[in-house]
Amino acid sequence: MTKKIAIIGASGYTGAELIRLIASHPGMEVAALAANSKAGQSMASVFPFLRHLDLPDLVIWEQIDFARIDLCFCALPHKTSQEVISQLPAEMKIVDLSADFRLRDPADYKNWYGNDHAAVEMQQEAVYGLTEFYRDRIAGARLVAGTGCNAATGQYSLRPLIQAGVIGLDDIILDMKCAVSGAGRSLKENLLHAELSEGYNAYAVGGQHRHLGEFDQEFSALAGRPVRVQFTPHLIPANRGILSTGYVSGDAKAVHETMLRAYADEPFIEVLPFGETPSTHHVRGSNFVHLGVTGDRIEGRAIVVAALDNLCKGSSGQAVQNANLMLGLPETQGLMAAPLFP
Amino acid sequence: MTKKIAIIGASGYTGAELIRLIASHPGMEVAALAANSKAGQSMASVFPFLRHLDLPDLVIWEQIDFARIDLCFCALPHKTSQEVISQLPAEMKIVDLSADFRLRDPADYKNWYGNDHAAVEMQQEAVYGLTEFYRDRIAGARLVAGTGCNAATGQYSLRPLIQAGVIGLDDIILDMKCAVSGAGRSLKENLLHAELSEGYNAYAVGGQHRHLGEFDQEFSALAGRPVRVQFTPHLIPANRGILSTGYVSGDAKAVHETMLRAYADEPFIEVLPFGETPSTHHVRGSNFVHLGVTGDRIEGRAIVVAALDNLCKGSSGQAVQNANLMLGLPETQGLMAAPLFP
Amino acid sequence: MTKKIAIIGASGYTGAELIRLIASHPGMEVAALAANSKAGQSMASVFPFLRHLDLPDLVIWEQIDFARIDLCFCALPHKTSQEVISQLPAEMKIVDLSADFRLRDPADYKNWYGNDHAAVEMQQEAVYGLTEFYRDRIAGARLVAGTGCNAATGQYSLRPLIQAGVIGLDDIILDMKCAVSGAGRSLKENLLHAELSEGYNAYAVGGQHRHLGEFDQEFSALAGRPVRVQFTPHLIPANRGILSTGYVSGDAKAVHETMLRAYADEPFIEVLPFGETPSTHHVRGSNFVHLGVTGDRIEGRAIVVAALDNLCKGSSGQAVQNANLMLGLPETQGLMAAPLFP
Amino acid sequence: MTKKIAIIGASGYTGAELIRLIASHPGMEVAALAANSKAGQSMASVFPFLRHLDLPDLVIWEQIDFARIDLCFCALPHKTSQEVISQLPAEMKIVDLSADFRLRDPADYKNWYGNDHAAVEMQQEAVYGLTEFYRDRIAGARLVAGTGCNAATGQYSLRPLIQAGVIGLDDIILDMKCAVSGAGRSLKENLLHAELSEGYNAYAVGGQHRHLGEFDQEFSALAGRPVRVQFTPHLIPANRGILSTGYVSGDAKAVHETMLRAYADEPFIEVLPFGETPSTHHVRGSNFVHLGVTGDRIEGRAIVVAALDNLCKGSSGQAVQNANLMLGLPETQGLMAAPLFP
Repeated sequence: MTKKIAIIGASGYTGAELIRLIASHPGMEVAALAANSKAGQSMASVFPFLRHLDLPDLVIWEQIDFARIDLCFCALPHKTSQEVISQLPAEMKIVDLSADFRLRDPADYKNWYGNDHAAVEMQQEAVYGLTEFYRDRIAGARLVAGTGCNAATGQYSLRPLIQAGVIGLDDIILDMKCAVSGAGRSLKENLLHAELSEGYNAYAVGGQHRHLGEFDQEFSALAGRPVRVQFTPHLIPANRGILSTGYVSGDAKAVHETMLRAYADEPFIEVLPFGETPSTHHVRGSNFVHLGVTGDRIEGRAIVVAALDNLCKGSSGQAVQNANLMLGLPETQGLMAAPLFP
Repeated sequence: MTKKIAIIGASGYTGAELIRLIASHPGMEVAALAANSKAGQSMASVFPFLRHLDLPDLVIWEQIDFARIDLCFCALPHKTSQEVISQLPAEMKIVDLSADFRLRDPADYKNWYGNDHAAVEMQQEAVYGLTEFYRDRIAGARLVAGTGCNAATGQYSLRPLIQAGVIGLDDIILDMKCAVSGAGRSLKENLLHAELSEGYNAYAVGGQHRHLGEFDQEFSALAGRPVRVQFTPHLIPANRGILSTGYVSGDAKAVHETMLRAYADEPFIEVLPFGETPSTHHVRGSNFVHLGVTGDRIEGRAIVVAALDNLCKGSSGQAVQNANLMLGLPETQGLMAAPLFP
Repeated sequence: MTKKIAIIGASGYTGAELIRLIASHPGMEVAALAANSKAGQSMASVFPFLRHLDLPDLVIWEQIDFARIDLCFCALPHKTSQEVISQLPAEMKIVDLSADFRLRDPADYKNWYGNDHAAVEMQQEAVYGLTEFYRDRIAGARLVAGTGCNAATGQYSLRPLIQAGVIGLDDIILDMKCAVSGAGRSLKENLLHAELSEGYNAYAVGGQHRHLGEFDQEFSALAGRPVRVQFTPHLIPANRGILSTGYVSGDAKAVHETMLRAYADEPFIEVLPFGETPSTHHVRGSNFVHLGVTGDRIEGRAIVVAALDNLCKGSSGQAVQNANLMLGLPETQGLMAAPLFP
Repeated sequence: MTKKIAIIGASGYTGAELIRLIASHPGMEVAALAANSKAGQSMASVFPFLRHLDLPDLVIWEQIDFARIDLCFCALPHKTSQEVISQLPAEMKIVDLSADFRLRDPADYKNWYGNDHAAVEMQQEAVYGLTEFYRDRIAGARLVAGTGCNAATGQYSLRPLIQAGVIGLDDIILDMKCAVSGAGRSLKENLLHAELSEGYNAYAVGGQHRHLGEFDQEFSALAGRPVRVQFTPHLIPANRGILSTGYVSGDAKAVHETMLRAYADEPFIEVLPFGETPSTHHVRGSNFVHLGVTGDRIEGRAIVVAALDNLCKGSSGQAVQNANLMLGLPETQGLMAAPLFP
């Protein structure tokens, strides 16, 4: 029997991506779609690329009959998400795609997001959704917090290296190149085609990006001591993709071997031969991560490049992967479609 | 049992698209891949986006053991295709993606392609691969000729209208906007990113494009009299998509109703409500066609806009759809994935 | 002595383009910049690409001391423009870039724009700003109405042909491909990079686009009888450029010769050799128009393709060209910079 | 009297950019254009965007009458350049845009470029063309070596800081994002629109890029000790622009003040207010450099971001600036045009 899925926040890009994935998923079906600002509209009008599907119209989330829902994805803006989720039925399985449950420490949350958390107990309960590293806990969780898309990319690059102790912890730099869909469907001048196409820029420079909260939490926990990385995101004129160029100290060959070993059995993670580097072209629209390791001419320095699709593996694909675990379905189900190229 | 598939010409975009589609197809598996210029290479090196798949290395086509192949896709350049296909085993089921078997009349072929056909009997035998209109004959065919991508787009716009007699036949104009992957992976100056991005232009203006041969053949057969349309393709800075804006004389409402009726049961063809127009954004990476009909302020004039993905529905998706029929599989199998947006 | 220029509506793309052009213009200098919604801001913050220039800060237009201004460009939205312009000093020379003074007939204006005109006498006084065809009247005008960018492109394609009587008047089709800056800097979902990049679509199909009002007015006046063309704009994923593909009946060679003759002495208009077609790539950022004429395989049909930069020749470049005439400066001054390629 | 200019290698992008700039330059005129592979062709056919100019046809360089040439730009591939330049008249003023005369040490040259230098004495004679730092020597030079475009970008970011001693020398990282025109007009698969658009990747990772030779030479000379930086270029789907994100140790405020002081009188270099970051959008098509400095949350770390147009300030604009000095013209002549935005 297919699992009945509800999506709250279905009118944004991550909501649409969830529907796209579930439409090809043999174990799930879309049972309810909510988007309060567009309630009453059909998905064909909100997202004409989904026109061929037989989908329920958008409702306000309070109208959903949760009794017949097996799992609920929340793709709401942060802060709104915690307010809605705290009102959902107590037993409802939830995968949240917002930032609201990623940080475990209420003080950290307030530090990065500026407000007190409105659902602190749920914050404690939530399992961090980086599947490959929290698999077992996710399988038993009620509430899973999807990671930041940049946070996921950086962690795929660094977690095995920190864990294995093959890199220095005090001089890590993550320079990321991010496609524009990561900014969502919001109407901002700098997201207009005429402002973005044919140019690119850094933003949130110098340690301001909120995904640093996740890096701090996760890398410090792994290392057993505080770890603070430098992270600079850049806005690139493309629609999907994150490319992370990581600069670390350590033996490049040891770094590469650690990567190969760590990800040997992972269905979605491809570690390239030593010296090759990935491209966002080659993961677009898919749940795959490509990782490349290269040595520098400066001895003792390595470069770790990671590529993934921010909307899929960085967000909605990860969410479906987690939902598979939570629902007892095969982890890769509905997620093995090849990337779209060109 | 899954059907064993060979692809000859696997190093181009249509070859890669075939592999992408078959990778998610429950009834097919890739058994052999040939590309004479890149024989010996792995698909991971030729198309890194397919790296996660367990694919055979490229060979020269003569090395394929056709005895264990159920169906062969040929994605070779025209002229090469007829030479290779005429040497394949006589019983081999073949879907050809080249231009070689689209035109039934050897004189037409020579007129448009400049050379005598090297396999005239096979030219006669081949079934034209526009699935929705040749479904029964394709199911029984040994050799199916994939249509031109522009030719498909224009025919989806016009065939039902010509058949129903609701439009004039002597003043049809098809103005098409074509993404660059239609030109293939060939190294030409005008296909460089720096030459193409941020600009656009018409080409093959005035009746020079070879897909006109298909329009002439098919529309004339339908009408029972010679039909000659005007067709101007334009090269647009995008990777996938064809948008055809068709200008016809006729009653717009009657045109729309004819469309609705003709495509009511077609799984891949969506006729939009009257007055709405499609976008290539909404079919990218999919096997769907979106069709829109609008009336003009000038009475008796209608505009028919069609959008499809040239590499998928316009080429490799169509080929898989035809192969499904030829192999006795469900026609839509492996082809229902939603478009990629954004 | 350089002429003192004011720009009202300086925070949009046409305003910025005016400043870009005037910055290299030996006969003009920017003396005042107004943008009521961003008054108080520096141009470096509103348009960082102008950061190197020593420009006045933005004010509200009422703060401009018009006594020291030689000419005023109005780059306001339509309707706002007529309200502001009717309050400017009576002798002020004005080039208006909005739609407000393009149509001479108040009924036509109301028909296309939906409201009564608030300054009907000025509407009568205004000279239509298609420089090459209204040169003498523009030189003596106080108020010049910049044309629509699509309207300019179509008129460059057709005016000499209608005047010379070498084409039919009842079956003209203009299929245009328009870059996104034509839609301005407004925050609309369909103008986001993620929605526009990699796809394209028709809009305002079937005779709804307001620039048709200009075609009707101008072509009918030229022909001495009502002329109604079909015109379909398409939104293309590029920032600058309009490509118009015109379908006409007539002898293609005669069409080409008429073009050559008509534009022989025009400094900004390049008629290509017969059979060649222009590209928006080759006029980007410039005041040039490229025109190509090709015959069709169907006898008696010709295709006229025109390319220009919508922001420059289609709007702000035209405005400066007209201002040159109004101020007694050489017509081409400040406008001869080559296009930017690639 | 305008200076007579010859361009050898006029059929590539830097050659075309030279012509574009000279076309608006009051002190120079194009007297001869050479491109051996396209000799005999008109520039209108090789670069239709230059169609409006009255330019000489392409010849082979041996046909140029150098007696009437005041200065010669060489825009040839490296290695070819040294062969041609060593055959030019001994007194001819030359600005070379290739890599051939950038490195002063023959061993360094061989190390990075793989071959012995064919004109070692000229290599010694050549002045490194980073105008702002070699201004006096360039004014008196016969042969000036244009810098690498990445090399220029990195040096604008770092030279004042190294000179002032405000940053550490052993942990400098330059992560650059490079538009595709930097790769020239060569026909390579990865430069096709279909392969590049909508994706991005690192290349020459780990200290392989030849512009490192320039960094080593220049930074070491400045510091008076060997300096080796890490440098990773990335290919971005845009046509023009380099964005360099530099990671350095040092006090961010001191870094910013050093920048402000160093560039206070430079006409082409804009240092942004502390904490602001530049964008390639805002320098496109111009000779301007935008520089931004930001502090990191990690004390003692600063981020220096630089943006310029690789074809203009990074190559042909720099060449014209140097030629101005060599010819006794005002340094900024012909180079003050504002960027093109959007």
